[in-house]
Amino acid sequence: MRLENILKEIAPTNQEIFEKAKERTSNLIMPYRAMGMLNDISEKVCAIKETLKPSVNKRAVFVMAGDHGVVEEGVSAFPQQVTCEMIKAFVNDIATITVLARQNNCSTIVADVGSKCNISEKELKGSNKFIVKKVKYRTNNFTKEPAMTREEAEKSIMTGFEIASEEIKSQKLDVIATGDMGIGNTTPSSAIGAVITGKSVEEMTGKGTGITSDLLQNKINVIKTGINLHKPNPDDAIDILSKVGGIEIGAIAGVILAGAYHKIPVIIDGLISTAGALIAYKLCPTVKEYMFAGHISEEPGHKYMLEYLGLSPLLRLNMRLGEGTGAVLAMHILDAAVKIITEVATFEEAGVSKSDI
Amino acid sequence: MRLENILKEIAPTNQEIFEKAKERTSNLIMPYRAMGMLNDISEKVCAIKETLKPSVNKRAVFVMAGDHGVVEEGVSAFPQQVTCEMIKAFVNDIATITVLARQNNCSTIVADVGSKCNISEKELKGSNKFIVKKVKYRTNNFTKEPAMTREEAEKSIMTGFEIASEEIKSQKLDVIATGDMGIGNTTPSSAIGAVITGKSVEEMTGKGTGITSDLLQNKINVIKTGINLHKPNPDDAIDILSKVGGIEIGAIAGVILAGAYHKIPVIIDGLISTAGALIAYKLCPTVKEYMFAGHISEEPGHKYMLEYLGLSPLLRLNMRLGEGTGAVLAMHILDAAVKIITEVATFEEAGVSKSDI
Repeated sequence: MRLENILKEIAPTNQEIFEKAKERTSNLIMPYRAMGMLNDISEKVCAIKETLKPSVNKRAVFVMAGDHGVVEEGVSAFPQQVTCEMIKAFVNDIATITVLARQNNCSTIVADVGSKCNISEKELKGSNKFIVKKVKYRTNNFTKEPAMTREEAEKSIMTGFEIASEEIKSQKLDVIATGDMGIGNTTPSSAIGAVITGKSVEEMTGKGTGITSDLLQNKINVIKTGINLHKPNPDDAIDILSKVGGIEIGAIAGVILAGAYHKIPVIIDGLISTAGALIAYKLCPTVKEYMFAGHISEEPGHKYMLEYLGLSPLLRLNMRLGEGTGAVLAMHILDAAVKIITEVATFEEAGVSKSDI
Repeated sequence: MRLENILKEIAPTNQEIFEKAKERTSNLIMPYRAMGMLNDISEKVCAIKETLKPSVNKRAVFVMAGDHGVVEEGVSAFPQQVTCEMIKAFVNDIATITVLARQNNCSTIVADVGSKCNISEKELKGSNKFIVKKVKYRTNNFTKEPAMTREEAEKSIMTGFEIASEEIKSQKLDVIATGDMGIGNTTPSSAIGAVITGKSVEEMTGKGTGITSDLLQNKINVIKTGINLHKPNPDDAIDILSKVGGIEIGAIAGVILAGAYHKIPVIIDGLISTAGALIAYKLCPTVKEYMFAGHISEEPGHKYMLEYLGLSPLLRLNMRLGEGTGAVLAMHILDAAVKIITEVATFEEAGVSKSDI
């Protein structure tokens, strides 16, 4: 399958079902739309799944991992080997994302699409699915050369699309979430955000895993250097991804495209996942109809990315971990919304009097 | 048991365990406190339950129902009979709160502490627990006389305390939530909020179930009339509750006191539950250490109440239903927080490298 064909086949969600869902909401035994965002969410899910009785029971989170050449420039608080150490922790079910995935009845699929390491089978003791499909062993340092070639950027998207499509079909998934792992990956994410939203690098860049103010200034300078050197075209998503992006960010864009292609809701996590969402959106604006913003991160740039996409976050808990944690926790909100539209009685069914006014 | 004795026995939460919980958080495999509010929540729960391995598995929501004499003044969009119709819908498991309680593995206890109606057994087909313990058959119209006597106000609190204590002990509950039903009850709630927080009636009053702007002006005038007529003493919670309060609001205050008395977390719902929380807090400021704000409601006064209490809402979903819906949905957030502190590995356990800086 080719990317251009995938993009052509992504269709708008069902507006007829959407209107019917809104009608049902207005008849539920509550003041008009008194569940606020939950009412909105439920109607969007109905439109995506083309039914007034949707289910979001079968769930998976795709944690895409990759390494970043730009880490050489001192942009992260953690050493690069942590990418591989955390991949093992995900598979071995002891990390935050796997704890929350278990809480939310969600399977975890960990995919190494671009880390530096070769993890051997015997290091893995857990039950979570681990897929290795390397586009390359980390990106190039984008202060010196493009992060990857145009072909590699496109391959990273297609890799994410293929991994997610395979699981969506074989597990018959109802909803998916995106997650990430990659030491240094707030740097390319902020770069992508600045190029696409038009906000300044200063506004888009934060302390990531927790760097000092001095290192934050260095990180801003690194991102500016990359953008000034390569001048990515804001209207060409593949150009941006290849010049200042990341392999796992491309793969996340592919996961999002797979959700829209297969007509299921996709819950986006924080800054890195939303950088992937910006790439997917630039390739095919219709994907927005399938996306939910799981949460708003503490990273300052995330707000601008969500505003650009026109998405309201489901959770606001000052989280800044990534891994897919905000997206997976928000699955419960999507589930609540679906249960409200499918299980709450109407005024007529319940014999409850309507408003006087 | 007497109210004054209960208030004396409510003790601060365990600060030693709180400090130990903070230490554990700083060792979890994530950047320092990267789960934001979830880290804070988990530590507060540890301090409440006096253990680093708390559980919030056994859950109940107490939906307290009562009617309001002030409804005669045209303050609500719905007719008074809806209180009783909704009580039946709760017991019969077809209302929003019961759908969300089921989603959250939470039992629903419906208590009629002051409605106008006598519901017969044969009208009830559901399995949720229904308790009738009337303080009186609706409050008086507070634009003409106090809503209730001082003795009735105290009895409403004790009724809530006794109902919740009984269930906490017999079900061995780990966490409880508060909920309400009572047509017109945003009016006494805004009145209580204005008296206690010192904000103006205009700032504290909203459209409740959905009245027009003209009716909102009338509602503001009604609240001002009640406050000017009775001049409740802002430092005397029983005085405020008796003059401009509600029976179910007193009962909610009692439920909150019961949670603190039995050392379990209490999740507060929206405007009405938070009016009950203000009463409980005025009686015994220590209860704040046991309270969580489930969500922030669309009702404008709710924000000021939460600010007064110094509580950050767990959810922000533009909901305005009451019934306990925001509180029950937030149980999932509390559960996630507890699982993070109890199930995520430390750097040492996982063999993951710590930050360089």
